[in-house]
Amino acid sequence: MTSEPMSHRYVLVLAGGRGERFWPWSRPERPKQLLPLARDGGSLLAATMARASKLAPPERCLVLTSADLVERVRAECPRGTRVIGEPVGRNTAPAIAAAAMLFQRETPGASFAVLPADHAIDDRDAFAADLDRALTAAEQERVLVTIGIPPSRPETGFGYIERGAAAGERRYRVATFTEKPSRDRAEEFLRRGGFYWNAGIFAWRADVFLEALKKTRPALARALRGLAESQDFQTGLDRVLPECESISVDYAVLESADNVMVLEASFDWDDLGSWAAWARRQPRDERGNVLYGDAVAVECDDCVVVGEGGIAAALGLRSMVVVHAAGATLTCPIERGEDVRRVSDAARARSAR
Amino acid sequence: MTSEPMSHRYVLVLAGGRGERFWPWSRPERPKQLLPLARDGGSLLAATMARASKLAPPERCLVLTSADLVERVRAECPRGTRVIGEPVGRNTAPAIAAAAMLFQRETPGASFAVLPADHAIDDRDAFAADLDRALTAAEQERVLVTIGIPPSRPETGFGYIERGAAAGERRYRVATFTEKPSRDRAEEFLRRGGFYWNAGIFAWRADVFLEALKKTRPALARALRGLAESQDFQTGLDRVLPECESISVDYAVLESADNVMVLEASFDWDDLGSWAAWARRQPRDERGNVLYGDAVAVECDDCVVVGEGGIAAALGLRSMVVVHAAGATLTCPIERGEDVRRVSDAARARSAR
Repeated sequence: MTSEPMSHRYVLVLAGGRGERFWPWSRPERPKQLLPLARDGGSLLAATMARASKLAPPERCLVLTSADLVERVRAECPRGTRVIGEPVGRNTAPAIAAAAMLFQRETPGASFAVLPADHAIDDRDAFAADLDRALTAAEQERVLVTIGIPPSRPETGFGYIERGAAAGERRYRVATFTEKPSRDRAEEFLRRGGFYWNAGIFAWRADVFLEALKKTRPALARALRGLAESQDFQTGLDRVLPECESISVDYAVLESADNVMVLEASFDWDDLGSWAAWARRQPRDERGNVLYGDAVAVECDDCVVVGEGGIAAALGLRSMVVVHAAGATLTCPIERGEDVRRVSDAARARSAR
Repeated sequence: MTSEPMSHRYVLVLAGGRGERFWPWSRPERPKQLLPLARDGGSLLAATMARASKLAPPERCLVLTSADLVERVRAECPRGTRVIGEPVGRNTAPAIAAAAMLFQRETPGASFAVLPADHAIDDRDAFAADLDRALTAAEQERVLVTIGIPPSRPETGFGYIERGAAAGERRYRVATFTEKPSRDRAEEFLRRGGFYWNAGIFAWRADVFLEALKKTRPALARALRGLAESQDFQTGLDRVLPECESISVDYAVLESADNVMVLEASFDWDDLGSWAAWARRQPRDERGNVLYGDAVAVECDDCVVVGEGGIAAALGLRSMVVVHAAGATLTCPIERGEDVRRVSDAARARSAR
């Protein structure tokens, strides 16, 4: 696929998400990336690792997750994968920077792809080809490459990347980043064209990324220096991560660096950020209902009914989500899926009383 | 309250209902009469026994339930109450006839009140006074007295009693019985007046009832004769009940007998036949929601949310029932409460697969 020495390539999988949008199916001890949401019935993490395997062998795949999930995450990964627990969550910038330091120390001049663990991507070949192309550009041109997803709807929950001057086939300089726009702006982006969703999939050389971080976020770069002194990555991470600010890589680096490129994805992509998104990919019964597990729907239309460890029954509903899982129940209109977090917060507060 | 010798009076409580309308809160091992649906937070059965205690002492109260519920039912009854398990359900006529034979054998000339175990009645004094009046009439005039509830809405799920000639204060001969009328007929009944709901609350002498049964349903009377030969009521019931036809007392006796009277109730009454009926009697939050147990409602209006043994969470719903109980979940519009049985049937069928 490329002439570049593949042994310089690593993959970093970020598997720290809490996935509260699928509560009560998802929960702290089984977040979204561990749910059987992939099309093959496996977890999104396992599917991510299968895609990663086309980019690097297991021993050069690093999975970062929260400390309490390490064993469950490891069970979804190919043997030999390095799974490391973060003592605290500090968003993506510190995690990616720490991984960059590890890779650079092991393999000077290393490049790596950053993959979120909880997205759905079906076309593995197109994915591998795009990432190879992104890595090659990152290696040869010392640029920070972000994968841009051609938007299919005026989604307000994503970040948008506006492309600038062309820099190669499906590759562009980045003109602007926009975090979660209003509905009006999102519609304008789609109308104007030249905008992509920021999927959190990146490719860069470790040294190039760390140089950029030093410029854009020097305090964070300094906070991470202690890692270099630790013989063991886990020990070092446990020591330095709590001292880092919690900040996304988009905000810490990409929005400020001057060597950022966007590569337009040729693969399908879905962040499965809600019940509605998951349901779009599931088989439906003759009345449009998605039934999963112990689910019963009587005179229902266009509903999502999930029963795990118990029966979820719906009667006479339209466009509703009914979930019974882990000893709890959620019911809401499908279009309110973005707000499930508010309910899980309220439920947690109630449990804590 | 009366000059009649009270030691002739018994109470029969019918506690055999399965209460599938409250599934999954109710279930075979905890049917509606055992749920904490009474206003004081206790079970409807316990509340029924408290009312019964004004009519007869525990040793002259007989509770018939299904064999597998005997211990749970006994736990809700005053010490000394006789609780007998029916080996099979045969509707009300055989159960009442068997009890009549028992009472008549123990106390020739005995009278008794028949009380369903799963209705809600708050005014215990009015109830006791009405039943005393009904029993007195039954004893003195050898009539079969049924309590008529003044209807407050054109309910189609109840039987209606049309009153005939006056026979005393709030007492009338019965002109007609109508089982579950159409909506149109129910509305006509309310418009015309002189109709009552049949609440399944009766008062009569044991011998008068058995004479009537012999005339209206001779085969059933014959099938029960074996009871008289058994020294022990439970043993006799186990032997004869399976041989009896399953038939309601209304259909077997009241609709055919010529000595039936209706006494207009002066007490409140609700059969709590649905979630909506139960909710009408519960406190509500400022948006009209009834929250019971581990229940969370976010941006909901006029909903019923019940969480038992786990959290039930509702988001953005209007006039819905959300129940999490006994490891199962039901969601339906409140007005579909009458159809819950169809879901519990489907859920059971699913479990049995």
